[in-house]
Amino acid sequence: MDTHLGTSAAAHDEQAIRALVARWLEASATGDLPALLSLMAEDVVFLTPGQPPIRGRDAFAADAQQGQYRIEASGEVREVQVNGDWAYCWSQLVVTVTPLETGSPVRRSGPTLTILRKEPDGRWVVFRDANMLTLEASA
Amino acid sequence: MDTHLGTSAAAHDEQAIRALVARWLEASATGDLPALLSLMAEDVVFLTPGQPPIRGRDAFAADAQQGQYRIEASGEVREVQVNGDWAYCWSQLVVTVTPLETGSPVRRSGPTLTILRKEPDGRWVVFRDANMLTLEASA
Repeated sequence: MDTHLGTSAAAHDEQAIRALVARWLEASATGDLPALLSLMAEDVVFLTPGQPPIRGRDAFAADAQQGQYRIEASGEVREVQVNGDWAYCWSQLVVTVTPLETGSPVRRSGPTLTILRKEPDGRWVVFRDANMLTLEASA
Repeated sequence: MDTHLGTSAAAHDEQAIRALVARWLEASATGDLPALLSLMAEDVVFLTPGQPPIRGRDAFAADAQQGQYRIEASGEVREVQVNGDWAYCWSQLVVTVTPLETGSPVRRSGPTLTILRKEPDGRWVVFRDANMLTLEASA
């Protein structure tokens, strides 16, 4: 879209998606599951190496409540592209998960490739997510 | 798109993308690098756990020519969705790579999430690819 209107709308969408990524990392860090769930489509799918897919918001919620962790997450958005009511986002993340029981932090880093969908109410939500984070060698 | 025309065009695109995945696996198996290169955008990006991104068709070609392997690849397309001149494809792959030097096969399996783009000439090409294959325990 080369019109001024189109460019401006795409810039607005890109900004909304970058804000979503920031909110996602913040909600992960504070363990705010309702906030996380509000950022994903009901029929979301999460793909992770060596794990079965997590299909749907309810499955994500069930999975998230299995453990008690402290999470620190930071990241950098490498690319956002918007095409109508679809978008994708390539991020580079660093996530440290510390199980409260053991207190031993596990640090993972790597890329994510996320497909986002614009809901009828105009909100962007995570729709398909490919997580390629790997364990870092311990310090 | 609920019109008959729209549905039919989307079905045609989905068929083209499934054919692309099949050609990709076949070209991987036969080591047909020119065929593989013809199936990706010039500015393609491949993301893999624990590896730096491969950015661009030329980088893929340089990377592919570093080693001599026999590759067997099979897969199942789990989902294809088309939205105008974008699409994504979630596949579940099993890839066995045997370096000719050692003869010891290494088997990886897992999901891929691929974003495809329709080129101006109507061909679909791989644009962004998230590879989540992990080593299987040896037999």
